[in-house]
Amino acid sequence: MLDNEKTRNSLSLEMMNSIQAHIVANQHQTELRCIILAAQGRVFSAGHNLKELTAEQGPDRHKQVFHKCSELIDTIRKAPIPVIAQVDGLAAAAGCQLVASCDMALCSDISTFSTPGASFGIFCSTPGIAVVRAVPRMRAAYMLFTGLPITATEALEAGLVSKVVPKDRLQEEVSNVCKAIASKSRSVISLGKTFFYQQIALDVSTAYDLGEQVMVDNLATTDGREGIRSFVEKRPPRWTHND
Amino acid sequence: MLDNEKTRNSLSLEMMNSIQAHIVANQHQTELRCIILAAQGRVFSAGHNLKELTAEQGPDRHKQVFHKCSELIDTIRKAPIPVIAQVDGLAAAAGCQLVASCDMALCSDISTFSTPGASFGIFCSTPGIAVVRAVPRMRAAYMLFTGLPITATEALEAGLVSKVVPKDRLQEEVSNVCKAIASKSRSVISLGKTFFYQQIALDVSTAYDLGEQVMVDNLATTDGREGIRSFVEKRPPRWTHND
Amino acid sequence: MLDNEKTRNSLSLEMMNSIQAHIVANQHQTELRCIILAAQGRVFSAGHNLKELTAEQGPDRHKQVFHKCSELIDTIRKAPIPVIAQVDGLAAAAGCQLVASCDMALCSDISTFSTPGASFGIFCSTPGIAVVRAVPRMRAAYMLFTGLPITATEALEAGLVSKVVPKDRLQEEVSNVCKAIASKSRSVISLGKTFFYQQIALDVSTAYDLGEQVMVDNLATTDGREGIRSFVEKRPPRWTHND
Repeated sequence: MLDNEKTRNSLSLEMMNSIQAHIVANQHQTELRCIILAAQGRVFSAGHNLKELTAEQGPDRHKQVFHKCSELIDTIRKAPIPVIAQVDGLAAAAGCQLVASCDMALCSDISTFSTPGASFGIFCSTPGIAVVRAVPRMRAAYMLFTGLPITATEALEAGLVSKVVPKDRLQEEVSNVCKAIASKSRSVISLGKTFFYQQIALDVSTAYDLGEQVMVDNLATTDGREGIRSFVEKRPPRWTHND
Repeated sequence: MLDNEKTRNSLSLEMMNSIQAHIVANQHQTELRCIILAAQGRVFSAGHNLKELTAEQGPDRHKQVFHKCSELIDTIRKAPIPVIAQVDGLAAAAGCQLVASCDMALCSDISTFSTPGASFGIFCSTPGIAVVRAVPRMRAAYMLFTGLPITATEALEAGLVSKVVPKDRLQEEVSNVCKAIASKSRSVISLGKTFFYQQIALDVSTAYDLGEQVMVDNLATTDGREGIRSFVEKRPPRWTHND
Repeated sequence: MLDNEKTRNSLSLEMMNSIQAHIVANQHQTELRCIILAAQGRVFSAGHNLKELTAEQGPDRHKQVFHKCSELIDTIRKAPIPVIAQVDGLAAAAGCQLVASCDMALCSDISTFSTPGASFGIFCSTPGIAVVRAVPRMRAAYMLFTGLPITATEALEAGLVSKVVPKDRLQEEVSNVCKAIASKSRSVISLGKTFFYQQIALDVSTAYDLGEQVMVDNLATTDGREGIRSFVEKRPPRWTHND
């Protein structure tokens, strides 16, 4: 939960450390099946705290800020369960990068997304890494060069988010997605997430070579065997979540 | 034509062998200008036959199933003519992978697409290879982690299919696409398809280096020369289809 | 400005040389903040001039044409300021490639896009390089194999263009985008554009490693420092544009 309305939930070093610590601390609890990144107030996150990026803070501090941000994104990717952004407002600059770096993003129809760094003299170069891997280049360039916001509907159309719902149905949608994840085996979701990001980076043919074996190994797990057996026996599966 | 409603057109080894054999058998007949993968019944394909994936069948059989599926996809890609999925219903798991692996997919507005493997203990890892190369990562992750279906319109928006039309216009749309392909030179379509998949895997600059030569070579073929000549002489081209 | 209605603004060697020369000649003038590629008439560009691709012209001339086109695209990418396609009509074949190769494309709702080369015996192999990097493969294949046009709305949905507006609002939209770019530091836009294309070609982790340093270096520039300072002091920035 991003909870500092005063700074528009800016991603200060402290805020990034806090998010990262929460993800790491709980990620191996069997009962925890997905992590929701939500925010208090009308701004999901306005991006880095510009007070940490003044000339007085110096290049070492600047480096520390950007490196922490990359680390946070890496932590999201490596978490064994899905990390979901729940957006109900503005996600700007590194805030937009954070959304684009979650496994999924569910947002309300009033949400907006922008990468306006260049307006403050600092081009959204690192947010662009996440954004251009989520949306077509033409859209990413529009956001990065103009700094103008796009709407929730445009974000969905472009692929920046997974789903858009009316504001008053956001909680319900988040809840549905969590239930869908929770109905499955935690270990199967976990092995699926790991291979998902691994294969994205591979050429198709290598991906299939590896993927075939991942499928075979998946079937050999306790929950893999139970899933198929329950299907054949026409009964609900009983997961161990513990492979 | 997938024609086993009883198993919801499941991609058993037998079914995959049959599809592959049909593609290979006819692909070099000059009269054949594109291949349509269609299905009998309300389910395009529900994916692998889970009865072939039980523990009793064992890892070697499992491996055989997934390897055959990769082979089938490779056969589609290497066919010298376009292979088009005609979808009018549900395409799930490996069925969704099959659609995403065709050169084009034309579908009716009642069609739906899902990758619900994790619900049966087997994460759609190999289907994910095809899906995440077709749609934005945010959409692919939603499908893979929740198992929830997306509609035909969402599939189009995301890039999983080429075109959506009302159910009663699907045959007409397929027919239009086939006519458009048939009006061109078979050899030109074939060289175009080969380079299309080759260049996708290359960096832009290497792609252009190769692409320039492909264009020059294309112009030197009989049908390439005829195409340009017919344009200059303002008359319909007469293709040999035989370069 | 593509200004040869007689040839439907075909990209003859002369036309490509002229566009390239205009981009190169002015790109370092501080006052110039973005370059607009617009066209006279109802056709943005119909693609290569087929009269330069006849058998009589020979393979060396053909090669020269395609190589010049790759060079032009490279020039657009390397220009230190954004190059924007303003499309109000048909962009076909290499004309579609040109649009897809600009940093942004703004188009009117009556615009259409196609890659119909195969109808003239010459598959749009090089246009396909640009198109399939802009839109989902399913859409690119549809355009390339059928040659059928897509509408402006479909082009936006697919990612081929950045924005679609009603025809009578196209100038206004172009003007808004130019103003948004002009309100920022030229040098910041320039370093942002350079890294944008550099990082697209990298794996995510290398991209972030480099990106962190690009952000630190950006903050150390005169306009980077001024941007942050003006934000903290709550006043408009005064750019030098000269880093």
